[in-house]
Amino acid sequence: MFIERHSVGLVDSQSYVFGSPEDPLVLDSGHTLGPVELVYETYGTPNEARTNAILICHALSGDAHAAGIHDPHDKRVGWWDVMIGPGKAFDTERYWVICANVIGGCKGSSGPRTTNPATGRPYGSDFPLITIGDMVEAQKRLVAHLGIERLFCVVGGSMGGFQALEWSLRYPDQVHSVICIAAGAQLSTQAIAFNAVGRHAITSDPDWQGGHYYDTGGPVRGLAIARMVAHITYLSEMALNDKFGRRLQSADRLSYDIHNEFAVESYLNYQGTRFTERFDANSYIYITKAMDYFDIRRTYGPLKDALAATTARFLVVSYSSDWLFPKIQSQEIVRAMIAGDRDVSFVEIDSPHGHDAFLIDTDRLTRITSAFLDGSQRSKPFAT
Amino acid sequence: MFIERHSVGLVDSQSYVFGSPEDPLVLDSGHTLGPVELVYETYGTPNEARTNAILICHALSGDAHAAGIHDPHDKRVGWWDVMIGPGKAFDTERYWVICANVIGGCKGSSGPRTTNPATGRPYGSDFPLITIGDMVEAQKRLVAHLGIERLFCVVGGSMGGFQALEWSLRYPDQVHSVICIAAGAQLSTQAIAFNAVGRHAITSDPDWQGGHYYDTGGPVRGLAIARMVAHITYLSEMALNDKFGRRLQSADRLSYDIHNEFAVESYLNYQGTRFTERFDANSYIYITKAMDYFDIRRTYGPLKDALAATTARFLVVSYSSDWLFPKIQSQEIVRAMIAGDRDVSFVEIDSPHGHDAFLIDTDRLTRITSAFLDGSQRSKPFAT
Repeated sequence: MFIERHSVGLVDSQSYVFGSPEDPLVLDSGHTLGPVELVYETYGTPNEARTNAILICHALSGDAHAAGIHDPHDKRVGWWDVMIGPGKAFDTERYWVICANVIGGCKGSSGPRTTNPATGRPYGSDFPLITIGDMVEAQKRLVAHLGIERLFCVVGGSMGGFQALEWSLRYPDQVHSVICIAAGAQLSTQAIAFNAVGRHAITSDPDWQGGHYYDTGGPVRGLAIARMVAHITYLSEMALNDKFGRRLQSADRLSYDIHNEFAVESYLNYQGTRFTERFDANSYIYITKAMDYFDIRRTYGPLKDALAATTARFLVVSYSSDWLFPKIQSQEIVRAMIAGDRDVSFVEIDSPHGHDAFLIDTDRLTRITSAFLDGSQRSKPFAT
Repeated sequence: MFIERHSVGLVDSQSYVFGSPEDPLVLDSGHTLGPVELVYETYGTPNEARTNAILICHALSGDAHAAGIHDPHDKRVGWWDVMIGPGKAFDTERYWVICANVIGGCKGSSGPRTTNPATGRPYGSDFPLITIGDMVEAQKRLVAHLGIERLFCVVGGSMGGFQALEWSLRYPDQVHSVICIAAGAQLSTQAIAFNAVGRHAITSDPDWQGGHYYDTGGPVRGLAIARMVAHITYLSEMALNDKFGRRLQSADRLSYDIHNEFAVESYLNYQGTRFTERFDANSYIYITKAMDYFDIRRTYGPLKDALAATTARFLVVSYSSDWLFPKIQSQEIVRAMIAGDRDVSFVEIDSPHGHDAFLIDTDRLTRITSAFLDGSQRSKPFAT
């Protein structure tokens, strides 16, 4: 067993269950959900007052396993291990870091694959539609359960950034600082369109069976297509070109075959297929819909007014080659915050890696994050 | 019956058949095809020497019906009617305009749906893979059949631009001028990736049946998904946002329904479904593969050297919001032509309409085209 020096090492997932059919979680849609299970992990140690908690919010296909390994034989570490650990950006020697799988997901928290207490079978498409607000509401219960009155920081990239923003809007008094990476005040029309195509690929797969497929193979073909489309949007044109260019799959010569000719085709196929081994198609539908729904203006009114009601210190980060959440979307938030006299820093990180850069180009993100967290420790009310 | 004043009016499609199993067309892949049928249309009249012929090359989902109507009851005119007719950019009072459906297509010319003489059944996926060069080779036979020694102009947008470039490279002495719109020297890796996802959606549809589906319904679900993905790439982010924004499909309130919520979703669904009514899934595979294969460097060597061997006058046009064929790809061609001392003009047209702009924003394209064609009439060898 080898654990690198700055790793959080072996970690266990934990579970928190709250609510019941009689006392359920009331969702933004008006529907209810109960009991609700949240699977989460923690890294580091709470201080006595529990004022050093950092909540990490994961993106579409992420989960609660943000750092370390579950088993000595694990070949892969948590999805943001590079950022979480002793001496890392989210320094587990100073902070108590928490990450929970979102509701609607398929990595332990309540979602379409969960047993519906009313039927004794998986919810499937009877699971209620959820929003980013609902995800945050569930996290809020967990945070209270963990004895945290105020989060030192809420941080996330992509859909995680949506959750971080939502925290600052929904519970302004309970969030000291926010790091919002590669996100925006809403999804663009184009991003909704890509999500819609992915969902259409799933629901038009005959194996979707109206969303009740858990005793069969499920819509693996549709889910693979959805992932392939999405995967293109996570990479920059430049990154795709640098990685594959027009390189052929298997030879120097064109094969003139109806199947894959270029390396990028095989790569996408592989990504699509692998994804179906680890993700549930219904969760893909529910979570992308939650992303589509996120819209600060619709929920909280004009952006400047909405953000003026927040109290957190903000760090907003965008990546230069991210075309799914281009810089302009980060700037829109930042401008509204400045207009609302909020404490906000904005950094655009130069990177060729597109939207996925927040998982890859973490050197500069680490330096910026460390400095921001240090500053947040010195700022009110922590410094008072 | 109402025909607008500047319309070419009623037109008939014509058909030209050449080659035979004994004397077939030899394709770039080394495979052969014969007999070969090309369906085409002409507008205007040839001059005595037949030096006034303009060949229009269509894009992926286009066909030979570029202008006018086939029937007095037709509600729709040909796909580039706005550009072709008396007094229009391709002025049928001066020029003899020709447009042929590409081989591999499904609008009359030989393609996967054509009967395979060896079996008496449709080729399906036994149709040989074709290239842009093969499309041009077939057009060359038609042009010779029509008694044209030298085309006054070859013009096309998107895949049509590929064909126009290929003409200038393959038959430099037989092309007086070229208008290449919204194209480039090759498809980008990202564009190949989007094509690959579309093809994967078709071939993973169980109704594709290995490409032999002509006595059944065919992979309409897969083809619809392919079109939905592609359609997003034809529009700019701005155009999608202006057209749909975050407008809801059916009400002012969110329905929290698993199906379409936003107007852009229904629009894409509709576009996908409509496309399956007019296009063959196998042709979609073959034509996108032909686009993937197009690569001036692979076929003709370094771009500067390849283009230095052309003799045509060139007009290269890009659209500012086209992200499928961004300006940089047009500029790459233009720079190589200038380095090769070619006669080339480059125009970037400001437009919000993305790649599809060449079908929509035609006012400025008309003025530029008219001027370019006038200039081409005055240039050698026409002016000598």
